[in-house]
Amino acid sequence: MKKKNNYVAIMAGGIGSRFWPVSRVDLPKQFLDILGTGKTLIQSTFDRFAQFIEKENIYIVTSFQYKEIVAAQLPDLPVKNIVCEPSRKNTAPCVAYISYKLQQLDPKSNLICAPADHLILDDIAFTKTCIEALEFTEKNNALLTLGIKPFQPNTGYGYIQYEQEAVNDNIYKVKTFTEKPDLELAKTFISSGDFLWNAGIFVWQTKNIITAFEKYLPEMHELFDAARKAMNKDSEKEAIDLIYPLCVNISIDYGILEKAENVYVIPSSFGWSDLGTWGSAYENLEKDYHENAVAGHNVILFDSFKNMVHSSNEKVILLQGLEDFIVVDTEDALLVCKKDNEQAIKEYLAEIKRNIGDKFL
Amino acid sequence: MKKKNNYVAIMAGGIGSRFWPVSRVDLPKQFLDILGTGKTLIQSTFDRFAQFIEKENIYIVTSFQYKEIVAAQLPDLPVKNIVCEPSRKNTAPCVAYISYKLQQLDPKSNLICAPADHLILDDIAFTKTCIEALEFTEKNNALLTLGIKPFQPNTGYGYIQYEQEAVNDNIYKVKTFTEKPDLELAKTFISSGDFLWNAGIFVWQTKNIITAFEKYLPEMHELFDAARKAMNKDSEKEAIDLIYPLCVNISIDYGILEKAENVYVIPSSFGWSDLGTWGSAYENLEKDYHENAVAGHNVILFDSFKNMVHSSNEKVILLQGLEDFIVVDTEDALLVCKKDNEQAIKEYLAEIKRNIGDKFL
Repeated sequence: MKKKNNYVAIMAGGIGSRFWPVSRVDLPKQFLDILGTGKTLIQSTFDRFAQFIEKENIYIVTSFQYKEIVAAQLPDLPVKNIVCEPSRKNTAPCVAYISYKLQQLDPKSNLICAPADHLILDDIAFTKTCIEALEFTEKNNALLTLGIKPFQPNTGYGYIQYEQEAVNDNIYKVKTFTEKPDLELAKTFISSGDFLWNAGIFVWQTKNIITAFEKYLPEMHELFDAARKAMNKDSEKEAIDLIYPLCVNISIDYGILEKAENVYVIPSSFGWSDLGTWGSAYENLEKDYHENAVAGHNVILFDSFKNMVHSSNEKVILLQGLEDFIVVDTEDALLVCKKDNEQAIKEYLAEIKRNIGDKFL
Repeated sequence: MKKKNNYVAIMAGGIGSRFWPVSRVDLPKQFLDILGTGKTLIQSTFDRFAQFIEKENIYIVTSFQYKEIVAAQLPDLPVKNIVCEPSRKNTAPCVAYISYKLQQLDPKSNLICAPADHLILDDIAFTKTCIEALEFTEKNNALLTLGIKPFQPNTGYGYIQYEQEAVNDNIYKVKTFTEKPDLELAKTFISSGDFLWNAGIFVWQTKNIITAFEKYLPEMHELFDAARKAMNKDSEKEAIDLIYPLCVNISIDYGILEKAENVYVIPSSFGWSDLGTWGSAYENLEKDYHENAVAGHNVILFDSFKNMVHSSNEKVILLQGLEDFIVVDTEDALLVCKKDNEQAIKEYLAEIKRNIGDKFL
């Protein structure tokens, strides 16, 4: 049963630069079928939430640049539910915008905020966890986050430490949020058993997150609070255009969740990956006998092992003697790099920008 | 001074498969500017010979398939000088065709046979060597070959062993021709000092090579001898179309030179490479500080050493963590393979043919 006060805001404004050269500023990762499933990531995310949230209550928060792409990829979404940020300002202003907007629309709105571009394999477990979360936040002044039970000492994720005693079935109070750790620390986190991966999926009533903005980001609160009357009216765009340049660039984690007292977590397992890098795509793709993950046609490998190969067209790709590499070929760009070096792709892009210019980003 | 009886036949029928994916059956290596000099290999070869051979005496022997490409790339060449073989039959029938044809045209014709797709850096030394060769063959019943003084134990070339006593200035009698050796044998050849690389550049009077055909390949001689009257007439094509299917597929080296008694060699140095492989292109290209040879724009390398990179368009190519690789990117094919494995490219192409089909060859 879909409850009328339940909402989801799907965050779709990122540029997915670590998935270059497939993910591009003009058409980033969330709008692509990275794993060859037949759906783009945002389409999968939309369909996943549409199982338990009314379509009228699904909102996409993105840039004006991507408005038409969203409309084209999600024809079942009401166009008024595409909420466009005038500029990229990290997650706190983005969460504030959609929360104040929904609060004005529905004072009892109970909201999930989730990224558009994550992979979730077990939709049933995910739905169950979300419903459990929404039921908890409906009744409690709680800022709730979904934490992923970790299965390896991943250094690409932030971690959440939680109290060992549950406050309600499978819901725990959060002790601390941590930044991405180094490998040694990540190993310690895993073996301690009280750390989870921070998936960046949040659940709360809009009135409660607004209370938190008022307390922890009072300047941002003042800006959005003053614009409440303009929300969901023709004047909304004008008001937001004025507010955004004045907002600080800060994440919701750093700005509020790390400071608030009423933060809870549900330790979860639903086959999640943030699909942040080619390496995480590699982990989630089927491998051949030599542990190569190949997405694309006409790829022929000799003496090659544990590579991630992605080809977006009919081109023939012949690889020999490669081990642990990422090979991604598109119409206008080719990336060949060691898999363990993928975190450096952003630096490489800076180099491309310096040497060649913006057009390949 | 250009002598009226001196001719050159530039052999341009090969498909250069080891230069895949740049060299393709439809447009092989000899018609490409592999090293980025501003001229295709056949244009360079033509210009080199035009310095000391009358243009009217320069002949291109190729396939019908490439006739229009030759005409387009060599506008100064008389069109009647493009001699087309009806099928690929190795070098002996090719040499026979042009030799019997020129003998019919000019009984005193003194002919150089040379591949279209080799690299020669020192045109002055090359011209000097050729003139010396032509002067010798003009006066002697000699089958002369240009041997290259080797500077490394290359296993990709055949070798020529020669007598240590000159018969005439810098001209020596050949003892033996050898097949491509293994590395140990190649090292022995180099240290012995009496071996040269077989460059496949031959000089002789047509009447003398015809005498050799009569003696060592009598069946082939009979075929071409019977067609003499048709040569250089409208009936030539018809006669050749009948002869070719009856010719054995044999090289001029194996069919005649290894058996004949009157074979001579000039030990030469004119910056020669057969440009048979990407590795030989690597040797002949300028390297960057990390010994990478890069032909193409928009190529960015990180932590990469001793690679041969070739890009045929404006695509951005970002490589990291590669050492001793060949990376060649074209519109419809990408090759990444270890440099020391390039001799296997023919096997890879067979695999592509089996798995994907002919269109990428």
